[in-house]
Amino acid sequence: MKTLKSIDKLCSEGQAVKLFAPGPVQVPTFILQEMSKPNDLHRSKSYQELHSQTRSKLQRILHTENDIFFFTSSGSGVMEACVLNLIPKTGRALMLSCGNFGERWIEMATSNDRMIDVVALEWGKGFHPEKVETILSAEKQYDSIFITMNESSTGIMNPVWEIGPLVKKLQPQAVFCVDAVSCMGGREIKVDEWNIDVCLSATQKCLGVPPGLGIASVSEKALALAGRVQNRGWYFDFLNMKKYSEKDYTPATTNIPCLRALNVALEKMLTDGMENRYLHHEKMTQKIRNCVIECGFELFPEKGFQSSTITVVKNTRKVSVEDCIQKLLETTGHRFSNGYGKLSEKTFRIAAMGWITEDDLDVFLQHFRTLFTKN
Amino acid sequence: MKTLKSIDKLCSEGQAVKLFAPGPVQVPTFILQEMSKPNDLHRSKSYQELHSQTRSKLQRILHTENDIFFFTSSGSGVMEACVLNLIPKTGRALMLSCGNFGERWIEMATSNDRMIDVVALEWGKGFHPEKVETILSAEKQYDSIFITMNESSTGIMNPVWEIGPLVKKLQPQAVFCVDAVSCMGGREIKVDEWNIDVCLSATQKCLGVPPGLGIASVSEKALALAGRVQNRGWYFDFLNMKKYSEKDYTPATTNIPCLRALNVALEKMLTDGMENRYLHHEKMTQKIRNCVIECGFELFPEKGFQSSTITVVKNTRKVSVEDCIQKLLETTGHRFSNGYGKLSEKTFRIAAMGWITEDDLDVFLQHFRTLFTKN
Repeated sequence: MKTLKSIDKLCSEGQAVKLFAPGPVQVPTFILQEMSKPNDLHRSKSYQELHSQTRSKLQRILHTENDIFFFTSSGSGVMEACVLNLIPKTGRALMLSCGNFGERWIEMATSNDRMIDVVALEWGKGFHPEKVETILSAEKQYDSIFITMNESSTGIMNPVWEIGPLVKKLQPQAVFCVDAVSCMGGREIKVDEWNIDVCLSATQKCLGVPPGLGIASVSEKALALAGRVQNRGWYFDFLNMKKYSEKDYTPATTNIPCLRALNVALEKMLTDGMENRYLHHEKMTQKIRNCVIECGFELFPEKGFQSSTITVVKNTRKVSVEDCIQKLLETTGHRFSNGYGKLSEKTFRIAAMGWITEDDLDVFLQHFRTLFTKN
Repeated sequence: MKTLKSIDKLCSEGQAVKLFAPGPVQVPTFILQEMSKPNDLHRSKSYQELHSQTRSKLQRILHTENDIFFFTSSGSGVMEACVLNLIPKTGRALMLSCGNFGERWIEMATSNDRMIDVVALEWGKGFHPEKVETILSAEKQYDSIFITMNESSTGIMNPVWEIGPLVKKLQPQAVFCVDAVSCMGGREIKVDEWNIDVCLSATQKCLGVPPGLGIASVSEKALALAGRVQNRGWYFDFLNMKKYSEKDYTPATTNIPCLRALNVALEKMLTDGMENRYLHHEKMTQKIRNCVIECGFELFPEKGFQSSTITVVKNTRKVSVEDCIQKLLETTGHRFSNGYGKLSEKTFRIAAMGWITEDDLDVFLQHFRTLFTKN
């Protein structure tokens, strides 16, 4: 039996632990090798070409004509960028929260002294369009409305495809801002049709690229709102980013290796067909759900709101989650995740993000079954 | 003769343009290959080990016992972090500016609504300790004092080794914050001895690693000040970073490939000996200075303040800088840089950062001489 130490050694020697955790995900060699190519300057024709190509591909995938900004930051950096740019000091935003990442946005707003109204659901529940309709019918006119599309702490996927049009109908002045960190590239998102002004993500989840680059599609309406916001800061200032984006640049030095890897990953996705990719994720997630139920567990998220990229499992058998993760890792080199934050031992999480194949998944599920049958 | 297009093609095919520009710099294969290794989670023993090892090496190089924070951002992100954490809304900071990056800090302070006093020198001048002594002798007691150590827009290196002790003597309450983006790893910095509370940098300059990771050593005094600052935001909050740093983590997903590359780069530097590395940079920069003077140019920065990592050259021959850069790039695959911002055509810049060897430099200077002898 391999020990944990030897697993870590494998990692440091460049051999992969098979990751079924919600990011950073496993990255195939054809993408990894882009990371180690020599870089030119971030002010060069070759950079501009890379920037522009990657933007176009993301616009295709997101079904949008909006500009795409690249942030040298994690997804959390882009989340904070939205708070800084889209909540005027004298205005008000609405935050729809149903888990840890909704709470993170709330914390970002308050720590930046921005005024927000919050509707927070119990963890495990999703936003029903009827409920959202009632919320948005309030007299108050919001400057911006924030929602987590795929709440990876609870496994909830909110129906942004229904909520976006409701925002348009009931709060037409509001900028609609969607955290798609854990689903962009793994589930169809129609930015323009769904009325999404800012749709943000990062490379290390469903896009299947190493961590280090944030992404957002940003509408003209969002930029106009940013223009009315004081104290947007410098690093995440949308208007400065727009100025540079027009020249196919970012204001500061870009994470070029990650952008290059993203460009190649997107090319492959488009060649394979996005529809196929999305179906593949759904199919794999369905297999994961079946397996955990078969092993005597239950799904944590509310029915009808279950994410197609991550499965959050209720620890109904009351196993030691941490021990099970370590055991599977040490004996098979496969890793899944504990629950997030306060759900650490109450749930565990299995992701089907990025480039995991069905064969990979079958091997993992076989090990998983063995672990929970023997126990 | 190669065309620009073919140079760009070379880059995209993974062949190197030889970079004598002030970052991103050329990175040797033994570091590049770290970028393309498989990643484990950012919450794992293997990550913690990497984090902790890299911290220890940076502490050795910077001669400090202060904690080291890693930021998934460019150097500008860390600059903004300092503004957010080290200038209380009701307090006041002093910014010593002598070029573009000093001005960027000022812009960051004002765009974040923080009050600052500014002493700005004409571009090309450096901060004489006697002048700084007068400034710091003012009655006003600053919460924090900011200076750019190596101002890469003008080629000035400010004598932080003299200014730090003056801060300690004359403004003992102040947190001393140093932007060492373009010199950390290329010039000795004694953080503790020089009274530096925050010393910040990024990977893509003298540390000779691809872009995407910011670095700062942060003293207890700086953390105590941050504790008195409201509205530090989330992404760059020093206190949150400290909390995670104690577990060898960062609050959000780290740019793991870049951290792994940095760890290997630092290991090599320490094995080679930092003193040797610094002498090597000095020697190379002296060669560059001699060459440009021989070609009929003059040095831009004030005598006695010339950087040992970047040479900013006054375009006394009034050549078209842009044309010369393109010509050298297209005919030889070597790239130097135009002047920064308003100095774009009035100066040009040649860097000796990272891993450039003397042989590489000699070839570059030979091409440079040919270009300017023929012209």
